[in-house]
Amino acid sequence: SINGQRLWDSLMDLARIGATKKGGNCRLALSPLDGQGRDLVVGWMKQAGLTITVDQVGNIFGRRAGRNNALAPVMTGSHLDTQPTGGKFDGCFGVLAGLEVMRTLQDHGVTTEAPLELAVWTNEEGTRFVPVMMGSGVFAGKFSLDTALDACDADGKRVRDELQAIGYAGAAPVGGRPIGAYFEAHIEQGPILENEDKVIGVVTGSLGLRWYDVTVDGMEMHAGPTPMPLRRDALFAATHLMQAVINIANDHQPDGRGTVGVVQVHPGSRNVIPGRVSFTVDLRHQDAASLSEMDASLRQACAQVQGQHGVRVDLKDVQYFPPTPFDASLVGMVRAAAEQAKLPHRDIPTGAGHDAVYIASIAPTAMIFVPCKDGISHNEIEDAKPEHLEAGCNVLLAVMLARSC
Amino acid sequence: SINGQRLWDSLMDLARIGATKKGGNCRLALSPLDGQGRDLVVGWMKQAGLTITVDQVGNIFGRRAGRNNALAPVMTGSHLDTQPTGGKFDGCFGVLAGLEVMRTLQDHGVTTEAPLELAVWTNEEGTRFVPVMMGSGVFAGKFSLDTALDACDADGKRVRDELQAIGYAGAAPVGGRPIGAYFEAHIEQGPILENEDKVIGVVTGSLGLRWYDVTVDGMEMHAGPTPMPLRRDALFAATHLMQAVINIANDHQPDGRGTVGVVQVHPGSRNVIPGRVSFTVDLRHQDAASLSEMDASLRQACAQVQGQHGVRVDLKDVQYFPPTPFDASLVGMVRAAAEQAKLPHRDIPTGAGHDAVYIASIAPTAMIFVPCKDGISHNEIEDAKPEHLEAGCNVLLAVMLARSC
Ligand SMILES: NC(=O)NCCC(=O)O
Ligand SMILES: NC(=O)NCCC(=O)O
Repeated sequence: SINGQRLWDSLMDLARIGATKKGGNCRLALSPLDGQGRDLVVGWMKQAGLTITVDQVGNIFGRRAGRNNALAPVMTGSHLDTQPTGGKFDGCFGVLAGLEVMRTLQDHGVTTEAPLELAVWTNEEGTRFVPVMMGSGVFAGKFSLDTALDACDADGKRVRDELQAIGYAGAAPVGGRPIGAYFEAHIEQGPILENEDKVIGVVTGSLGLRWYDVTVDGMEMHAGPTPMPLRRDALFAATHLMQAVINIANDHQPDGRGTVGVVQVHPGSRNVIPGRVSFTVDLRHQDAASLSEMDASLRQACAQVQGQHGVRVDLKDVQYFPPTPFDASLVGMVRAAAEQAKLPHRDIPTGAGHDAVYIASIAPTAMIFVPCKDGISHNEIEDAKPEHLEAGCNVLLAVMLARSC
Repeated sequence: SINGQRLWDSLMDLARIGATKKGGNCRLALSPLDGQGRDLVVGWMKQAGLTITVDQVGNIFGRRAGRNNALAPVMTGSHLDTQPTGGKFDGCFGVLAGLEVMRTLQDHGVTTEAPLELAVWTNEEGTRFVPVMMGSGVFAGKFSLDTALDACDADGKRVRDELQAIGYAGAAPVGGRPIGAYFEAHIEQGPILENEDKVIGVVTGSLGLRWYDVTVDGMEMHAGPTPMPLRRDALFAATHLMQAVINIANDHQPDGRGTVGVVQVHPGSRNVIPGRVSFTVDLRHQDAASLSEMDASLRQACAQVQGQHGVRVDLKDVQYFPPTPFDASLVGMVRAAAEQAKLPHRDIPTGAGHDAVYIASIAPTAMIFVPCKDGISHNEIEDAKPEHLEAGCNVLLAVMLARSC
């Protein structure tokens, strides 16, 4: 079994890069700090005997040869980028759990039949650049390499240039690399396992997701002399849509989710009625038909607000992935490994998107969840117990061995 | 009478500094562009024979001697700073109308009994720095010089340093300068004069204003796995308060106004439930009791949202001025001058704050309004007719002469 202390220590070492005051991490995708985090982990991967390849979107692959290298490798992985106010475990646990598996096999001189690979996917979080799950998305053919490389952050900086700047604009083509099976370990990022005292979540599949950009155009006017009835206040109109997002999710319980995360108000002056408001929408559901209904309701709300408030509402689709079931056989292996180790477990969907969701469309895929404190993630206070991380990593070791031997 | 073409040409010359693509102006208070605008106008003031004094908050006074210089001067003025997406007339008309009066008297070799002064007040708009109407506010003793000098913009830059940087950190003490009477010409910034085909607004006084900063603290969590009932979404809570601001104003018609102009959502990531939302509130009313009621309703809404949404709501008072009637005798002079010139006119309150509102507390004060296109101000497309500006400037000339001779 794996070395839980070593896994924890590596997590804490990595968390020093981009550490925030409240104990979290800020290593935005392709920022200099993301580059430093990658350098640290690539060094560890080399020490663990892995052969490194970097592809054109900055995905990193560390390969451990097997006895039969014609076999498609068993891959694990996750991401190293974080939210602006992110935690120490989201993504990093999956990468370092994979590393710990590799280190453990090295310690014991084990050679598997099929080769093993550890992947670090680029820009999973989707905070600085969309599409979200960018590296795995291009790898799985969900969108083109140019779509990814031309994506800009809020300051107009491009993925293409930022990859160069941190030294991760690799030469390998993106995708086409064989994958025999893909496992990803991750913290749950929700409260279910903790509430039920489970240690392992056997992830059966993922909620579908729809992202949008909404822009509401009204009329900038003076906050003082302009009578209320003459206003076309873009913000007042927008608040009705922001509430509609929440109400639509509430109408599709227990699985619906709705979030407005980014808001920009123009021109942004105390005494100016906002002339333009832009905001993001994130809708999710486990069931494709329900997600379609939610999408239709949002469009209807936009039309209604446009009609009632004398504003122009523009709704732009930004990203979509459907509810994605994982591979029944691999999911069964995760369940069996938890069972075998006598770890309390339950089947669970993932409400977060993961690189595994895109990889699931090109290779058999499953995920292993462990609890996180109070279900809190995408927050600096995100926390997880060493013994849970160790247990999750041991399940990862077990399924990777079972699948590659 | 004054030279309307010269007035228009000066307005257009000034508007070249900080011109925006849509035909407006961006000369934020104490920015380098504000400095350039001031330099241009100070040059013109000197050519018109005025003696320049700059005080410690950057207010500029241009003095034209009278026959009896022991008399308190008749002053006019306004401001040169603009909104981020401001127009060519708000403030500039008042300053350049005053300049045109001085130029006209110079042309005709007129010497008045009392001296005349033209004032350019610092940071009237309150966009980059609060308090709004900063220069006239310190001058009238509404808040201290240090309050003004220590005010910071969103980037942490201080008034004190920015005054130095543009060369307008003057030596004269702020306030104490005698004012026999103060007249300010301005565009209406609302639709009433235009709708009623009036050329002159005889301003009887100003709406009262209350400014606030509101902060809503919830809990940052992941937009995907976090079930709707477990959320403490700071933005969802905040939208109810933003709507309350509008509803409160609507409940106090026809004179109530409510605006949310600036909004900041933290951490600002598509897939993070907002943990903190800050926004500004602007409430106005012509009647002090109604403004108090609106204030009480806002506080009640804050308490309600805090109770219902599991968030913390913090309401901070930022600025207050009460409804301010202007001097009956000076208002009468404006009405008489419009009458005399056979200009269609009506009495009107000002919904915008003006430097005149603070000066009204230390000297007899009145204002002269002219219409602006579609009542639109604080917008790049703000517009006014040359013949209306000329008429307003002629009324200004008439009342300044009447009061100083
Ligand atoms: N795991 C994770 O936080 N992914 C970010 C993508 C999402 O929004 O679900
Ligand atoms: N005149 C003018 O636009 N003043 C700005 C201050 C206010 O918000 O009323």
